[in-house]
Amino acid sequence: MGILKTLYGTSLSLLTDLYQITMAYAYWKSGMSDREAVFHLFYRKEPFKGGYAIACGLEVVIDYLNEFKFARSDLDYLSTLKGNDGKPLFDPAFLAYLSELEFTCSVDAIPEGTPVFENEPLVRVKGPLLQAQIIETALLNIINYQTLVATKSERICQSAKGAPVMEFGLRRAQGIDGGLSASRAAYIGGCSATSNVLAGKLFGIPVSGTHAHSWVMSFDNEIEAFERYAEAMENNCILLVDTYDTRQGIANAIEVGKAMKSHGKKLIGIRIDSGDLAYLSQLGREMLDQAGLHDTKIVASNDLDEYILESLHDQHSKIDLLGVGTKLVTAYDQPALGGVYKLSALKNEKGEWESKLKLSEQTIKINIPGIQQVRRFYKNGLMAADMIYDLEIGYSEEPTIVEPNDPTKSKKIKTAQFESEDLLVPIFKDGRLVYKSPGLPEIRSRVSDEIGKLHAGIKRFVNPHVYVVGLEQNLYEKRLRLILEQRKLIS
Amino acid sequence: MGILKTLYGTSLSLLTDLYQITMAYAYWKSGMSDREAVFHLFYRKEPFKGGYAIACGLEVVIDYLNEFKFARSDLDYLSTLKGNDGKPLFDPAFLAYLSELEFTCSVDAIPEGTPVFENEPLVRVKGPLLQAQIIETALLNIINYQTLVATKSERICQSAKGAPVMEFGLRRAQGIDGGLSASRAAYIGGCSATSNVLAGKLFGIPVSGTHAHSWVMSFDNEIEAFERYAEAMENNCILLVDTYDTRQGIANAIEVGKAMKSHGKKLIGIRIDSGDLAYLSQLGREMLDQAGLHDTKIVASNDLDEYILESLHDQHSKIDLLGVGTKLVTAYDQPALGGVYKLSALKNEKGEWESKLKLSEQTIKINIPGIQQVRRFYKNGLMAADMIYDLEIGYSEEPTIVEPNDPTKSKKIKTAQFESEDLLVPIFKDGRLVYKSPGLPEIRSRVSDEIGKLHAGIKRFVNPHVYVVGLEQNLYEKRLRLILEQRKLIS
Repeated sequence: MGILKTLYGTSLSLLTDLYQITMAYAYWKSGMSDREAVFHLFYRKEPFKGGYAIACGLEVVIDYLNEFKFARSDLDYLSTLKGNDGKPLFDPAFLAYLSELEFTCSVDAIPEGTPVFENEPLVRVKGPLLQAQIIETALLNIINYQTLVATKSERICQSAKGAPVMEFGLRRAQGIDGGLSASRAAYIGGCSATSNVLAGKLFGIPVSGTHAHSWVMSFDNEIEAFERYAEAMENNCILLVDTYDTRQGIANAIEVGKAMKSHGKKLIGIRIDSGDLAYLSQLGREMLDQAGLHDTKIVASNDLDEYILESLHDQHSKIDLLGVGTKLVTAYDQPALGGVYKLSALKNEKGEWESKLKLSEQTIKINIPGIQQVRRFYKNGLMAADMIYDLEIGYSEEPTIVEPNDPTKSKKIKTAQFESEDLLVPIFKDGRLVYKSPGLPEIRSRVSDEIGKLHAGIKRFVNPHVYVVGLEQNLYEKRLRLILEQRKLIS
Repeated sequence: MGILKTLYGTSLSLLTDLYQITMAYAYWKSGMSDREAVFHLFYRKEPFKGGYAIACGLEVVIDYLNEFKFARSDLDYLSTLKGNDGKPLFDPAFLAYLSELEFTCSVDAIPEGTPVFENEPLVRVKGPLLQAQIIETALLNIINYQTLVATKSERICQSAKGAPVMEFGLRRAQGIDGGLSASRAAYIGGCSATSNVLAGKLFGIPVSGTHAHSWVMSFDNEIEAFERYAEAMENNCILLVDTYDTRQGIANAIEVGKAMKSHGKKLIGIRIDSGDLAYLSQLGREMLDQAGLHDTKIVASNDLDEYILESLHDQHSKIDLLGVGTKLVTAYDQPALGGVYKLSALKNEKGEWESKLKLSEQTIKINIPGIQQVRRFYKNGLMAADMIYDLEIGYSEEPTIVEPNDPTKSKKIKTAQFESEDLLVPIFKDGRLVYKSPGLPEIRSRVSDEIGKLHAGIKRFVNPHVYVVGLEQNLYEKRLRLILEQRKLIS
């Protein structure tokens, strides 16, 4: 049973924008519901001013599509909606049509955990126009957020230089699912555990946590609080040392740690949640080592993100484990990925594919037409370039790829000299699921494997090197032709 | 049936940080589970550099607490958790205890839709220590996010100067519930409708939407697309005019609008989703008026927030309705409210209340001790000052209030000269719900009524006037005494 079905007790088919349903209605009335169409989901700009993103959310999309079915209560609700003349918005025959509707599209997607780049299709949906359209909002909601958090998590874990990162974000997350989805995506991006117990239960993510300041405040003094906690939690004891004064707190924790040691137990760690983490972690390490508690680890938390972690590393802080919350789960410096979902091909009445293009005064907003696939080329184990090509056109043995928004930049690829693969793989064929999602640990490993194939410059946080993503030349020219044709129609 | 029970098919009792459960375990083992405690939920800094926030989320908290009960599957999951020695983290007797646990705390809270200020308790929980502690994470998750979005929504609606604002954020929201909770909070904050159909179904919020660019692209040309849409949706027709070229799009929409008019129908509006909204809305208004379509409204969208709306207003744009998405539902410029939940009083073994204080090197992070209530004073229909006082101390007829972080600022209040009321009202008494949440429209009206009682300077977006919130002098002195006592213990 899928995660959405376990979590939600209600149909999610109305988790969409009303305009998807009014358009569906208009397609139905116009006899166009079953015209075959192709949509692509992509984003236009790398998040966090970085050089890449980590694709995430596909398994949840699969769940959503697997359960796609309007419930009776959905249709009852839609029947209550009125237009501006007070009459029902929808013809009952349309609602009857929706009640029978089954998802029959083909979906191809880039597997979760893959590094992806702006303008590349992460998901391609091909099938009846009405169906392919109506799923837009849910797909964007799920993939935009999870891709954003997986990317943020990967950046934070990268900057932790091997120290395990625990996700502690639930209390500041954007709603209940903001917390749950974040725990999933953060784990995929590289976090080793979450504080969110429900995410542990539902997704099997390791859970982590010890005690809060309130524990310490519940006792007459800190040392008593520490002693009592160590008694109760002798096999999971990390002591929070900054309720009153961190130096004193460390000293008290050491007292307790030595007593535990003398009984064959172990103080796993101390946690510092405020103040100068670089200085206090060095102080803590020194004090612990002097007391012979070399195995006791130092955990740090307090509004951490990849930039602060880099700075802590530069200052030679002595932190063994990190707790990261708000900045990770809300993707604080860029809380939304601007993913879009655009029609790019539609069969005409003769059954021939026609490429579709949306013009815009902002050139960056003009979509890529056709039925797309992404070919990724590798050399010496490193990713060398991605080519977006049109499945109806294909590509030659030595294709030229052109930067979509700057045609002065192009590159010829002698394909025989590269390893290569298509990134979009079949997920649904005519509505039938043909893909088995890997488990989360496998997706998580994929992230670290794949990130290892990126040139270091691309992973830089400040002014990263731009990875080459080009349109196969014939696709580039087709797009250009369509743009010029459209502009001519206007003027 | 509560909204959470309708939406979620699973117990949410594990929607918490693991440390709540490890602490609960340690309290249970230490025989302290039932010691009576008081916690307050508050935030330390106004969001968006503004002068206030709008309390939101209480109804969902009530739902959560009403359903609070560990399910069999929750306990089964907890029984699988292991400590660092590979042995179970929790004693089975503790899990048996949890299986019987019922919520018996008393909860007081400030009603949704009330303007609130930093340091004020939004929720007070009083009851057995273990219970009062274990609900922390869920309360913070729900109230932090909904308060944030309700506040953002109120700011945006304020800057719309009477033009209705529709919330269109689902596709960029942080997860499924990020979308749903946002629709609820945005409506409370003043939005008139949402695009999110599930939010319409579950919360009864008006839904709104017409068509996307893909509709236009599905036809050979824009005028045909508009004609077909107007046929299908004759009582809900708003045409999106910027798929190819906005000026041409407006001209095409006018053609269709005139044809509709000649058949006794009405083109409700045109929507502009890109480009220079000030200029294009003026152009659109002029073209529509010249064609006699004075009733056809202009809808604008495209990454709008309160700052852009103010600028559009200053430029005399002609926008009748606004669609706001990403910036609203993610609270883009500050995607988390830093609400916290702090222990402030605990009964000792003799059954006497002891005030609790957490020290911090950052003075702003030191909590307010005691069992708190907020008294709000009004003069001439305007809010004059808030006084946080200790229910165990009370206050005199002429209390002095002191700014908690700057004691040089104090103010004497002759209570007889003010109207006043206590803001925290009883929600649960000993676990029994004693409060009936108002409907969303009523909460929404409360926001506009209450905001009307704020001095204009406090509502300013840039450097707002600071509303007076003080500690009643005896509470102030008690806090100071506790701080000095704690510091003495350390040095």
